[in-house]
Amino acid sequence: MRRIKATIAYDGGDYHGWQVQPGLPTIQGVLEQIASEIEGKPVQIAGSGRTDAGVHALGQVAAFTLANPIPLPNLRRAINRLLPPAVRVLAVEEVHAEFHPRFDAHAKTYEYRIARNEVCSPFEWRYVHHYPYPLDEGRMEKLALAFEGVHDYSVFAAADDSDEEGKSKVRTVYRSALEREDGRLIYRVRGSGFLKHMVRNLVGTLIEAGKGNIADLNELPDKSGPTAPARGLFLVGVEYEEKQ
Amino acid sequence: MRRIKATIAYDGGDYHGWQVQPGLPTIQGVLEQIASEIEGKPVQIAGSGRTDAGVHALGQVAAFTLANPIPLPNLRRAINRLLPPAVRVLAVEEVHAEFHPRFDAHAKTYEYRIARNEVCSPFEWRYVHHYPYPLDEGRMEKLALAFEGVHDYSVFAAADDSDEEGKSKVRTVYRSALEREDGRLIYRVRGSGFLKHMVRNLVGTLIEAGKGNIADLNELPDKSGPTAPARGLFLVGVEYEEKQ
Repeated sequence: MRRIKATIAYDGGDYHGWQVQPGLPTIQGVLEQIASEIEGKPVQIAGSGRTDAGVHALGQVAAFTLANPIPLPNLRRAINRLLPPAVRVLAVEEVHAEFHPRFDAHAKTYEYRIARNEVCSPFEWRYVHHYPYPLDEGRMEKLALAFEGVHDYSVFAAADDSDEEGKSKVRTVYRSALEREDGRLIYRVRGSGFLKHMVRNLVGTLIEAGKGNIADLNELPDKSGPTAPARGLFLVGVEYEEKQ
Repeated sequence: MRRIKATIAYDGGDYHGWQVQPGLPTIQGVLEQIASEIEGKPVQIAGSGRTDAGVHALGQVAAFTLANPIPLPNLRRAINRLLPPAVRVLAVEEVHAEFHPRFDAHAKTYEYRIARNEVCSPFEWRYVHHYPYPLDEGRMEKLALAFEGVHDYSVFAAADDSDEEGKSKVRTVYRSALEREDGRLIYRVRGSGFLKHMVRNLVGTLIEAGKGNIADLNELPDKSGPTAPARGLFLVGVEYEEKQ
């Protein structure tokens, strides 16, 4: 048996998130269906973590175990041929048998895109949060830095984050920064891990700061802003120890 | 009454082309519906020309006549608020009462995008023709130049181009060039006007040249290659006399 690590990009717009849900299109669902087709029997796919409905990925990481001896380049081609075009396997590699994309992950990076132009391009609206209203971007930049550090991020977790009940909500955010790029605001955050809705809640809080609604920009606020829309969020990548 | 010229961008992927068709979503159809809503009675929209089902526009031009005295910036905002996000009015201006976006057009520019990377990005597949197979790009560049000039482009017209029956198929192509950009081939063509499917047929012919199937690259071929897929084609802009 071979353990395969796959790096996957997807447009989450038409999917009900990563995790398999009976009767609904999900990323894990289409991947399991296709891997099972190639293997000739049911294959389970483990992901680095769930992404919510509508959230995109530039570099989600998944793993599965195959008996099929198909060479790696052919495996990638075969999977991509069977996948819908909104989901692409960018790379496959063989890893040690115990590799788990969630438990072995050291850090994750997300990116959130806010379009600031008055008219949102018809080719971009699926991939940005269009917010053409006034924002004090300097205030947002400042607060973004205050998100860094080792904190209990409970107030930024989804109210229904039942999976995490009783578990620690302390995470480490290594980098949190807001940047301007071509008429957009891009929020990039790298951390040890993220609670459900955490990045979208951090972005909603940044927008509150931009509207002048948060007084102290030097500390992690004790209240979250509204959850920003899923379509602006991209899972950029997941980091592991070099040796796998 | 005011004559309004509107510049419009759209993602044609979910539309059955520009022209109104009963019971099907079309760009002209959604625009007429919304202009009529604003005017309070039926409004007809004239376009610079039809785009086929699935073809996109960065700068389609349309015109319509309104009695409503709404200021132009508010008109644009009102239309965009009512339009689906895949269709955006980029600009509106008042023009003379006889302005017609089709009959007054002097030139049009189209762009066709061919993705050459092995794996097509899930965020790009709606807007490119993914062709990862070998192509002699030098041969394609050469033939693209041979498309320029004043020619009868009959062989590049759609077989069912009934509208044009009996009319001249002579057009002037001012510029025709293939360029490489970030792992893509971009074909740009500017001309006095284009027959139905003409740009997609020129692209299909370029691909045939890239495959080595056309011997003489210095002349307009006497046979068209297969029509390239609609999703790679963008109407970039339409040119008019400065004074309108």
